[in-house]
Amino acid sequence: MSDLEHTVDRQASGLHAFLAEVAEVLGQASLLTGADCAPYEIDVAHCRGKAAAVVIPCDTHAVSALMRIAVRHRIRLVAQGNRSGLVGGAVTDNSGKQVIVSLSRMRQVREIDPLNRTVIVEAGTLLSALNRTLETHSLYFPIDIGSDPAIGGLIGANAGGSRLLKHGDVRHNLLGIEVVLPDGDGTVVQLLAPLRKNNTGLDLKQLFVGTGGAFGIITAATLELKRIDQSTQSVFVALPDHGTALEVLQAFELQFGDLLCAFEVISEAALVITLRNFPTLRHPFGQSSASCYALIEIASSMPGLHSLFAQRTEQVLEALYESGRILDAAFGNTSSFWPLRDNLPLAIAKEGIPLSFDVAFSRSRLVAFRDQAAQWLQREHPLLQLYDFGHFADGGCHLIVLVPHAHIRQYGIAKVVAVRSGIYKLVTENGGCFSAEHGVGPVNAAYYGKYTPPEVQEISRAMQLLMDPQAVLGRYRYT
Amino acid sequence: MSDLEHTVDRQASGLHAFLAEVAEVLGQASLLTGADCAPYEIDVAHCRGKAAAVVIPCDTHAVSALMRIAVRHRIRLVAQGNRSGLVGGAVTDNSGKQVIVSLSRMRQVREIDPLNRTVIVEAGTLLSALNRTLETHSLYFPIDIGSDPAIGGLIGANAGGSRLLKHGDVRHNLLGIEVVLPDGDGTVVQLLAPLRKNNTGLDLKQLFVGTGGAFGIITAATLELKRIDQSTQSVFVALPDHGTALEVLQAFELQFGDLLCAFEVISEAALVITLRNFPTLRHPFGQSSASCYALIEIASSMPGLHSLFAQRTEQVLEALYESGRILDAAFGNTSSFWPLRDNLPLAIAKEGIPLSFDVAFSRSRLVAFRDQAAQWLQREHPLLQLYDFGHFADGGCHLIVLVPHAHIRQYGIAKVVAVRSGIYKLVTENGGCFSAEHGVGPVNAAYYGKYTPPEVQEISRAMQLLMDPQAVLGRYRYT
Repeated sequence: MSDLEHTVDRQASGLHAFLAEVAEVLGQASLLTGADCAPYEIDVAHCRGKAAAVVIPCDTHAVSALMRIAVRHRIRLVAQGNRSGLVGGAVTDNSGKQVIVSLSRMRQVREIDPLNRTVIVEAGTLLSALNRTLETHSLYFPIDIGSDPAIGGLIGANAGGSRLLKHGDVRHNLLGIEVVLPDGDGTVVQLLAPLRKNNTGLDLKQLFVGTGGAFGIITAATLELKRIDQSTQSVFVALPDHGTALEVLQAFELQFGDLLCAFEVISEAALVITLRNFPTLRHPFGQSSASCYALIEIASSMPGLHSLFAQRTEQVLEALYESGRILDAAFGNTSSFWPLRDNLPLAIAKEGIPLSFDVAFSRSRLVAFRDQAAQWLQREHPLLQLYDFGHFADGGCHLIVLVPHAHIRQYGIAKVVAVRSGIYKLVTENGGCFSAEHGVGPVNAAYYGKYTPPEVQEISRAMQLLMDPQAVLGRYRYT
Repeated sequence: MSDLEHTVDRQASGLHAFLAEVAEVLGQASLLTGADCAPYEIDVAHCRGKAAAVVIPCDTHAVSALMRIAVRHRIRLVAQGNRSGLVGGAVTDNSGKQVIVSLSRMRQVREIDPLNRTVIVEAGTLLSALNRTLETHSLYFPIDIGSDPAIGGLIGANAGGSRLLKHGDVRHNLLGIEVVLPDGDGTVVQLLAPLRKNNTGLDLKQLFVGTGGAFGIITAATLELKRIDQSTQSVFVALPDHGTALEVLQAFELQFGDLLCAFEVISEAALVITLRNFPTLRHPFGQSSASCYALIEIASSMPGLHSLFAQRTEQVLEALYESGRILDAAFGNTSSFWPLRDNLPLAIAKEGIPLSFDVAFSRSRLVAFRDQAAQWLQREHPLLQLYDFGHFADGGCHLIVLVPHAHIRQYGIAKVVAVRSGIYKLVTENGGCFSAEHGVGPVNAAYYGKYTPPEVQEISRAMQLLMDPQAVLGRYRYT
């Protein structure tokens, strides 16, 4: 046997021993292998891997036992929620040696405290299911995103979404976690106290937020909840250009202050392609000469503000119309316009291969970046099409560069890399970041290496070594 | 020479060499020694130390140079803002070997971006000065506390304050930091990009929030700002007991939702002692048979809601009065009632030695704790007086146990420790934490050791060793 064969053999027998022990300790029913793993090996973004097995623990105790076995056999675990992430962070690589830990059996809502407006919930619980349970108390967890992640995945990605302006990201609404550490004991750290104020040293839970499962497996979380909105107003406006969108945003902030809840901008091209691919959707204005649109939402959990919102919105729009800053406007309720926004990525994907960029800027740099990116693409890559939309109010910008079906053969890997490099160069020049709300994961690994300050990379690496000396955790590693 | 003398001598010459080098590199004007250090050696809470020197760097470059010299000579640095903390975290110990780094010359507001609602500000800037500068843009940093800390201190303590319910703590409003690391290079990590969404790996800045300068010296910060409130309503209500305060809180949350901004509860005893010691203050009701009071504030940066707030407040109060849940109510503006709340600690201190507890709970456990603490004190320590007040809406509770002048001789250190132990036992039994918003520091060091989970202590210790292997930083050490 060669050295290499020896190594492979040792790893295989390590894996066999690991699987046998998992079956013994957690029960055969918690373990999937072979073809049974298939549904867990691909995520919503079509990231695909080959897993050695899928383990589905039923409680925190089982996750801890699993961790101990994994550390002893040095088997890499990848925690998985609802596979709704966009950076491949919850699927294994293709080696067939990594093991998926699905939290899908840990969906208990352990404790709702309506007076405290908090819930303790297990990490596998889906956001939609949690919110349905909370509805009877007129409460909800205010992270508003198109997909339906598990709570653990939400924390691992530190999701933000469309209403970040008002409610903040997951980090802002997270009071506690229960986490299993990748040490030899599978230590369970319980920091679930539902406290809004707690400054008794290092806030350890922050380490696990937005780091995609790199430092531990989150098994439960304590979330602060908001009262469901009682007064809302939605409006869809047509704008002459992206720069004016920022002026309109300022006008709305001035008149609605902290009650401005969402301000989404969609380019004309993005709206047109959405309507073309979803014929049941309706153009709010029939047609328009606008360059882009804004979906604006005002909301409060204070009841009885609706008519005031409507009246004030009319006044603001009238003034904006008279000064030429908006071209048209349509009123609606919360559900009127979001389908135009939410179906956009699906629509674009129907006409070719989409290259997605989820980037963020200071509001002040957003339009400059967007315009530079559009000009650069037109000059350097005239065969490609740009669709942009995003959370203007928080500086977020989703850029989809489409390689149309007709030109896919001209766009091989080298050209795609050239597009990505060009766009990220503009992102950096405009002070932006390469991942606004999806994390690193294998998809963004190269950009992490290139754009994250070396000191941050070095400390992250050292911390991962500290927390996980045997390297048993996580799809993306800082090391 | 004995071994001990050798050691002392080496340390002294290390200190001399350190001071000589600091004078040479930073300039003699940046260095205070001897009696000139006195103003920097005591804080607002009367924590006092003896410093070897005070260094007052003028910019980040100087802090970095200082750090390099300190690491080489292994001199302990303690960063200091405005000495407004309550846990002694910004003064040195009594050894005369530690050096204060005052950020008081670093008060530049580097960049205000009104469109992005952000500011980049140096760590020595006082909160009041920052807010004065921001006022012309109708913006402010929404951490509302009685004292006037420097921005670096605010971050080190992760201050919360009276309006946390609406605006969150410092962590919620912090977008970036610039920090000098305690490594041999005095590495400056610049993470100042004013981005609301940035999930490109470990959010390193979180490590420096609430850890009292243990991991680095923060030299600047990027803060998210809020628009100044345009509509407000304050009301002061008399309540039959603390339990009812929670019912009143719920009634206000139901009617005002996210626009409820503050809900402070003050016991009758605390109000009486405040009025007795501040004769210019007026009892809102002349006199009252209430057991406690609530100061309630509703606010929004949306203009034009004032009359709606007033009208709705009247309706809520009427219903509460009819059901016997409030005894009386007085309307006012923002400045009407806060002096009653803000002068309370000063008033209590005039009548003896106050033992302060800044603890936090789930709202649901707050009243049980408060009542148990009152009963326990009456039973075990009948000579002491209890004054309680706090941020009921966020579970915060300030408990001041007064040793009246007349009984100070009966309350030696052993009895004081017994009181503290008894109270903290009740805090723990009710799921609370021993420091809601002042951090650890030397004042809370013993409680950190006793009440923080051992796994958290162990990881904190390891992280401090990782970041600061020469132990040159911070008054309180996790090691």
